[in-house]
Amino acid sequence: MTAAYITGFGGADAIRVGRLPRPVPGPDEALVRVDAVAADHVDTFVRSGAYATDVPFPFVIGRDLVGTVAVPAGPFAAGDRVWCNSLGHDGRQGSFAQYAAVPVDRLHPLPAGADPVAAVAVLHTAATAHLGLFRTARLQRGETILVLGGGGGVGSAVVQLAATAGARVVVVDRAENAEWCRAGGADQVLDRDDPNTPDTVRDLAPGGVDVLWDCSGHHDFETTVPLLARGGRVVLTAGLHVRAVLPVGAVYTRDISVRGFVISNASAAELAEAAEDINRELARGRLKGRIRATLPLAEAARAHRMLEGHEGTGAPGRVVLLPEDPWRARLNRADKEGRHTCRVC
Amino acid sequence: MTAAYITGFGGADAIRVGRLPRPVPGPDEALVRVDAVAADHVDTFVRSGAYATDVPFPFVIGRDLVGTVAVPAGPFAAGDRVWCNSLGHDGRQGSFAQYAAVPVDRLHPLPAGADPVAAVAVLHTAATAHLGLFRTARLQRGETILVLGGGGGVGSAVVQLAATAGARVVVVDRAENAEWCRAGGADQVLDRDDPNTPDTVRDLAPGGVDVLWDCSGHHDFETTVPLLARGGRVVLTAGLHVRAVLPVGAVYTRDISVRGFVISNASAAELAEAAEDINRELARGRLKGRIRATLPLAEAARAHRMLEGHEGTGAPGRVVLLPEDPWRARLNRADKEGRHTCRVC
Repeated sequence: MTAAYITGFGGADAIRVGRLPRPVPGPDEALVRVDAVAADHVDTFVRSGAYATDVPFPFVIGRDLVGTVAVPAGPFAAGDRVWCNSLGHDGRQGSFAQYAAVPVDRLHPLPAGADPVAAVAVLHTAATAHLGLFRTARLQRGETILVLGGGGGVGSAVVQLAATAGARVVVVDRAENAEWCRAGGADQVLDRDDPNTPDTVRDLAPGGVDVLWDCSGHHDFETTVPLLARGGRVVLTAGLHVRAVLPVGAVYTRDISVRGFVISNASAAELAEAAEDINRELARGRLKGRIRATLPLAEAARAHRMLEGHEGTGAPGRVVLLPEDPWRARLNRADKEGRHTCRVC
Repeated sequence: MTAAYITGFGGADAIRVGRLPRPVPGPDEALVRVDAVAADHVDTFVRSGAYATDVPFPFVIGRDLVGTVAVPAGPFAAGDRVWCNSLGHDGRQGSFAQYAAVPVDRLHPLPAGADPVAAVAVLHTAATAHLGLFRTARLQRGETILVLGGGGGVGSAVVQLAATAGARVVVVDRAENAEWCRAGGADQVLDRDDPNTPDTVRDLAPGGVDVLWDCSGHHDFETTVPLLARGGRVVLTAGLHVRAVLPVGAVYTRDISVRGFVISNASAAELAEAAEDINRELARGRLKGRIRATLPLAEAARAHRMLEGHEGTGAPGRVVLLPEDPWRARLNRADKEGRHTCRVC
């Protein structure tokens, strides 16, 4: 099969696209034919070695896939549309290939009618948002959440899932993201570059906000902690190299907690619990991601360069890859039918 | 009755000791004759106005008391030995008086045989420790807790209660506190001033410590966060004016949380739950505080000055006050019997 893989840690140019043996599913694994994958920032950390995890070389990169069951297992029958968002780390091979062997406890049905490309773009961000909102911050109906960077990948999913849970959602982002955030369910969208924004938050939530999620990773706690209510929860998931200043007294005298997590540490059971909600919202059309580019799998290295900011416009949105691009599929058909005579490809 | 009270916010010299009307217990309140009280740091913040809470003037200072029921209410009969650790804030008058009206849901029986002075010295610190360990950090049997400043007031209670819960307790403090901490149940006591101490913690807990409680309020997170296990909890209760540097990536990539609280925000139900455990350990003799000074109530201002570091040796230990000191009691008896002829006092 064709796969995007690495044989050692390195930059985006360490990614090779070529032939690897089709994986043989183990017990409790299904073989899935991959329809679409998405590139996550954490994929770049796994590829570079910055994120310490068990990586067997040659290592197929990538976490997420939407696909079709080829060799059934557990409750999944051949032909079922499925998805997974936790391959490519902790000893598991990744998703950037034509086929992937997926443990059945990490495989979830794709809701009928869901578009594979649209779905794959939100699987990872929505699961991150779900874990942070409901497991980590225990967001309750009627509470107020302040989302900084609500127009980004994780931010959009946070806004959308918080809104579906009956929370009041206040977003701070660049003005150009306001419409997108409102469409996702934000009650108020405030301009990141307006110096009055902290005061506006205070006016909107005089008793303080219950949950703060700074998806931008800036963590200006001197400004944000005073905006929190007693018992407020700060979700911490971004800003890998940031050293943030924590005003200790303002935190503990109001029973505030700062709760960090990464989805990589979540158990299969935790991911499965999130998957149930994600599927319900996917079926309702309430989870939507912006897609910056849809590329053939052969351009996996370019996708990583885009995530790392070395290529592309910096426009918001996810990068989706298709293991079998239409051109390649046509060639494959021509090969089979003996109509392909080109000596180059 | 005699009481230590303030008529406005101010320094320790704002404290007056004089006559106030004996309180009339409301519905669901018992009148308690006070046997002993303890001075808490938070009392000085209430007195100065630094801690914003409802304070009706003239305001009797103090949170904690051990006493004897004079006017019964709820399950408490006249003559019952009782204790409370949540007077003196949130609109409630304080404990530094000969009598206090105490809501029955904030009143707890004193275990038979418990010494009032020894008990009053640990009521507030033990409740703080209990809330932090079991409600906030959810410390489990077999987990490792690292207590910085384990020889102090709250620190001693943290060490003792963590040990009774089957946790492994590692303390970092000044060498002179080592014996006290070991007697309280610490498994290891490391010297605060030894530069190798972080490495020693790493050797003692190669997988990381599960809970960190820095009672000293210094919060050197750059040193301590890397000592935590995945899923580690940092309890934050001290360092009012500290701005601590939080290494964001080291926190969130290992699912670490920093959880602040003050006992002042705890509900009566939460305090009552802690009180059950505290009473069990008091009865077993497993909760012990160091007492720096036992003073008559008339010296309430001196007690506050000692807590604020303006008076005394800085030796560790709690300051306990007795509303009716033996000398005054003798005088009172002499007054009643007409034997007191002094024209000065």
